[in-house]
Amino acid sequence: MGIENQTNKIKGAQSVEYGNPPYILEYASICGKKEGQGPLKEEFDERSEDDMFGADTWEKAESALQEKTVRLLLQKSGYQNTDIRYMFAGDLLGQLIASTFGLLNFEIPFFGLYGACSTMGESLSLGSMTIAGGYADKVITLASSHFASAEKTFRFPLEYGNQRPYSATWTVTGCGAVVLGSGSSAENKKKAKAKIRGITTGKIVDFGVKDSMNMGACMAPAAADVIQKNLSDFGYTVDEYDKIITGDLGYIGQTILIDLLRAVDIDISEKHMDCGIEIFDSEKQDTHAGGSGCGCSATVLCGYILGKIQRGEWKKVLFVPTGAMLSPISFNEGQSVPGIAHAVIIENREVQ
Amino acid sequence: MGIENQTNKIKGAQSVEYGNPPYILEYASICGKKEGQGPLKEEFDERSEDDMFGADTWEKAESALQEKTVRLLLQKSGYQNTDIRYMFAGDLLGQLIASTFGLLNFEIPFFGLYGACSTMGESLSLGSMTIAGGYADKVITLASSHFASAEKTFRFPLEYGNQRPYSATWTVTGCGAVVLGSGSSAENKKKAKAKIRGITTGKIVDFGVKDSMNMGACMAPAAADVIQKNLSDFGYTVDEYDKIITGDLGYIGQTILIDLLRAVDIDISEKHMDCGIEIFDSEKQDTHAGGSGCGCSATVLCGYILGKIQRGEWKKVLFVPTGAMLSPISFNEGQSVPGIAHAVIIENREVQ
Repeated sequence: MGIENQTNKIKGAQSVEYGNPPYILEYASICGKKEGQGPLKEEFDERSEDDMFGADTWEKAESALQEKTVRLLLQKSGYQNTDIRYMFAGDLLGQLIASTFGLLNFEIPFFGLYGACSTMGESLSLGSMTIAGGYADKVITLASSHFASAEKTFRFPLEYGNQRPYSATWTVTGCGAVVLGSGSSAENKKKAKAKIRGITTGKIVDFGVKDSMNMGACMAPAAADVIQKNLSDFGYTVDEYDKIITGDLGYIGQTILIDLLRAVDIDISEKHMDCGIEIFDSEKQDTHAGGSGCGCSATVLCGYILGKIQRGEWKKVLFVPTGAMLSPISFNEGQSVPGIAHAVIIENREVQ
Repeated sequence: MGIENQTNKIKGAQSVEYGNPPYILEYASICGKKEGQGPLKEEFDERSEDDMFGADTWEKAESALQEKTVRLLLQKSGYQNTDIRYMFAGDLLGQLIASTFGLLNFEIPFFGLYGACSTMGESLSLGSMTIAGGYADKVITLASSHFASAEKTFRFPLEYGNQRPYSATWTVTGCGAVVLGSGSSAENKKKAKAKIRGITTGKIVDFGVKDSMNMGACMAPAAADVIQKNLSDFGYTVDEYDKIITGDLGYIGQTILIDLLRAVDIDISEKHMDCGIEIFDSEKQDTHAGGSGCGCSATVLCGYILGKIQRGEWKKVLFVPTGAMLSPISFNEGQSVPGIAHAVIIENREVQ
């Protein structure tokens, strides 16, 4: 099978604009119990009452969550695993075990990604490049996190019952997944729910923050950097977007992000939304600075955000999942927590 | 800048053949002390006498190794960091801290990858897709591992001095990195050392092996699967290649691989080479089944293999880094160790 002419454009230093924007053909999200009691509860496809998802360890629970979400995605879309040429996926656990065990039964060529909580941005970026480059007609991109497996990996044993400062976030139990399809296929056009106009790939940004209980401060500089680059690479003002949506900066990170961008004369305060702030009612649910984890931006995308875009309530958003490159080892060895963020321009399917 | 017509071809179920094969414009490798005493010692650009690379922890040592290797690569190639549009990198440590801290000073848009010891294959695959898709003129792809940081992550504290069974491998301290460049640029053609004809992307393959001290057995089924797919997708016989080179199967994995492929009437016994077998003198250096780690295939590629290809001693090889999706957590929870392998067709620059 030959690959047709593509009219993609390299924009500025860090961006790509697609000539035939890849379609988001379908999306699915499953969340845990606490997320299912939050303000966005009606937006997810499924709310699990069982955070173990039928498994006997937290890690297996997260794998089961991924598998369940992809099965739901295939069911909603009407595709078989054999229709999907590549999977781009990641999670927060060491050696990506949630993805490895969650996805192996689908037998789809697999690219494992680690971008901390920016993974949904990384997977959408590489997935859409693959589609728009003509390497595949359909791919799946996804990310997940699980509160208990993440606490065990990054913080304290849950049984220890440590106090959490107000700057700390609460890792979301959830998985969001999409099917991306070629933007030059008429059949795909009929099914399209949204499209990806372009991407801006982030750099690792280190402001020297060493507080593992204040991830928002670690990630805000990376988010500010990639948003600024997106606007300059595409020649946009903030008004281009209905929303500029970060992954999991939380309340503290949001303030820092807005301040950092104001310092370079960009005011996103009227347009900014953070998935971590939206997913929980911080006061009632005791989640402090907000939700976090790659599942946070992934589930909010594959529920609330894509719903709004599909219905035309938002025409164009900049989706910016944010990651903190925290490891318990580097942290305990006294190193800082660098951040990274990847920006994806998502549009309503009718936008020209 | 517009992107020109590409003539890439989707081949079979899992492969891509590039119309203008991306060039390997330069390559560099740095290894540790033990690797620098092995049979391939003359093949690496630098052999460090100091496995700490001037750092005070093993993790920082691995970061320093990555940084040093990329600096050497840029120096050898004559490029600046601003000439490189993307970096595709990974390592074996939780949350990719070797790459995060090793690469952040280059300020290059970054895609973090985890494919266990298959990472060099994953990074070459995504890097070459990015180049041949017209998204970049130059990218860097790399992978590293470090004996001490890997032992700490996956096995026992070094101080414990555990006995290692003969099926165990020895994690290579080393980093290999390449600059990939567009295959349609005349300027690149002058500098080209080799080119990438195509790729075959692997699936996660789980044969249910649960022995973390026998990684070769865990990975061999994935290697067999992707080699078989490569041959059938491209319509090749084994004779197409001068060598079929796996990453770190070691002696036991090699036997299993050859047997598995014989069962489907493919005999690679005359063509097979394993980087893990080549890098150490197992008997003299007490490395048992061979070398392993993402740095094993990466350094052997960026020393021995690309040297042979550049000099025309080999015209065409299939490079198949092999990964075991082992995590100490999943392992201790009784799960198996699935494998994955990604195949990359590398040719001499003059091959048509």
